[in-house]
Amino acid sequence: MGMLEDLTLDRIRMAADRIASHVVRTPLLCYERDADCELLLKPESLQPTGAFKLRGAINKIATLAEDCPGVVAHSSGNHAQAVAWAAALFDLPAVVVMPNDAPKIKRARTEASGADVVVVGPDSDERSARARQLAHERGWALVEPYDDVEIAAGQGTSALELIEDAGELDRFYAPISGGGLMAGCAVVVSALCPDAEIIGCEPEDAGDTRASLQAGKRCTIPPPMSIADGLRVRRPGEQTWPVIRKRVHRVELVTDDELLDAMAWALHALRLVLEPSGAASLALALREGKGRCGVLLSGGNVDPKHLEEAANRASKLS
Amino acid sequence: MGMLEDLTLDRIRMAADRIASHVVRTPLLCYERDADCELLLKPESLQPTGAFKLRGAINKIATLAEDCPGVVAHSSGNHAQAVAWAAALFDLPAVVVMPNDAPKIKRARTEASGADVVVVGPDSDERSARARQLAHERGWALVEPYDDVEIAAGQGTSALELIEDAGELDRFYAPISGGGLMAGCAVVVSALCPDAEIIGCEPEDAGDTRASLQAGKRCTIPPPMSIADGLRVRRPGEQTWPVIRKRVHRVELVTDDELLDAMAWALHALRLVLEPSGAASLALALREGKGRCGVLLSGGNVDPKHLEEAANRASKLS
Repeated sequence: MGMLEDLTLDRIRMAADRIASHVVRTPLLCYERDADCELLLKPESLQPTGAFKLRGAINKIATLAEDCPGVVAHSSGNHAQAVAWAAALFDLPAVVVMPNDAPKIKRARTEASGADVVVVGPDSDERSARARQLAHERGWALVEPYDDVEIAAGQGTSALELIEDAGELDRFYAPISGGGLMAGCAVVVSALCPDAEIIGCEPEDAGDTRASLQAGKRCTIPPPMSIADGLRVRRPGEQTWPVIRKRVHRVELVTDDELLDAMAWALHALRLVLEPSGAASLALALREGKGRCGVLLSGGNVDPKHLEEAANRASKLS
Repeated sequence: MGMLEDLTLDRIRMAADRIASHVVRTPLLCYERDADCELLLKPESLQPTGAFKLRGAINKIATLAEDCPGVVAHSSGNHAQAVAWAAALFDLPAVVVMPNDAPKIKRARTEASGADVVVVGPDSDERSARARQLAHERGWALVEPYDDVEIAAGQGTSALELIEDAGELDRFYAPISGGGLMAGCAVVVSALCPDAEIIGCEPEDAGDTRASLQAGKRCTIPPPMSIADGLRVRRPGEQTWPVIRKRVHRVELVTDDELLDAMAWALHALRLVLEPSGAASLALALREGKGRCGVLLSGGNVDPKHLEEAANRASKLS
């Protein structure tokens, strides 16, 4: 059995019960752009680790065998912090493999939660190989960033809350990296709002899922350079891909410039700090949103230079 | 009867029911500073108008006579936006008297909600006199910024939610301007957490309530110049003062520099945009917090220059 069969609404509801007391029930922020477009925004940046990733990490670690001696993860940043935080919650040691180009803030926070950080090159294949090796050597559990049904189920709880608070949607927007968030959310949205269009968002040079949907099979792209460091994977997850192929209606690309503009708009109009990856779905919804649009704001762990640039752009919006 | 008798926990619970479907139930954000201090933060900056003021404005306008033809308000900014928003919600015309030194963003947003703005000098006495005159001329209802039991009851609902989510508190921190927020919150905190210390916060040159508590009577101070534009009143409210004198244990002052540092910390650690006034209680809690501290983050409508300064300071926190 794979994620396509196992990732059910029931499993996501069980994850929601499991994590409820450990995550923030982020509010639904409503913004009427005009008579034709209402944005219904879910700011996962308000989780204690600053991103939705905490949902999946807690759900996964809560379902590990009781005698599990420790956990290993690999991540460009937000999953790293989430696993470190969740491991501490369950009194487990954690080691996290991170790329050397991860934002300093993400590494510092991972270490602050008590995890050991192992630094490798920027390529996502290199870090997953290293994490696998470490898990094998130590006999610790590998907490995958997206290719795991309990991870995807945990991430999907964000869409469950969004729809509980928002009701019927015309569209649902979320960013796609490895696809764990989108797989979980797409199962929820297609079950509860069957008429809603499910739209993924990727940076201009990280459009592996868009290319894969067009080709009808998983494509690998060259290493992306977008400022959206959380969305720089090179191909869809093996497990998440069949779910995304089945449930996501389309994927659109946004430029780094649009990401910075969306971050500025979030500072100004929502009083929220978003990171570039966390503003991707907002950038797209601001460009093309129509009707009642659910928008997943995935994270807020921004590098200072991007925050300063966004604050500067925000000053022109007043 | 005055506010001291009329502002009861029951009245605040009724206000909570009345406004529930119109305001955001802002989340409780928990931050463990160290083993001795947990901050339990209530970000009212996430209300659609960017501040707690919406609670009181909606509660007040919902309790006006049904044949009320329109509303008049005076405010340095956040109450203005709140009354404009609430009036639109109830299909009432609104006119708001604002000082000429109010942040541009607050005036623009007041007008965007459809209210007429009348600009006067920076003194709070001048704008209240002008609002009174306009209300009299037109036969419209005056929606006071703080000296009204239904306004204070609405503002107090924020503390009700905070305690519902946080449980027992050792301390409660909120800013004091005219005192509507603190009066409502202090009634709630003293009823539900009778052992908690209730601590007000004012800018260094706007310490009218601190001076009044020390003198045992309402004192008037010279016009303040603090960057916390929402806290620049010159004396405690006539109605709110007896409540604050009875319930608030102490009031402390914070400098503009501490306000900017707290705004930077909020950007960095909470991913929240706060305005100087909205960061006052946080600045104080960061300085002296101990035990389980409820902290009311009152608003996020920040002038671009202060946001840029805070973003710059945040870059040094990473």
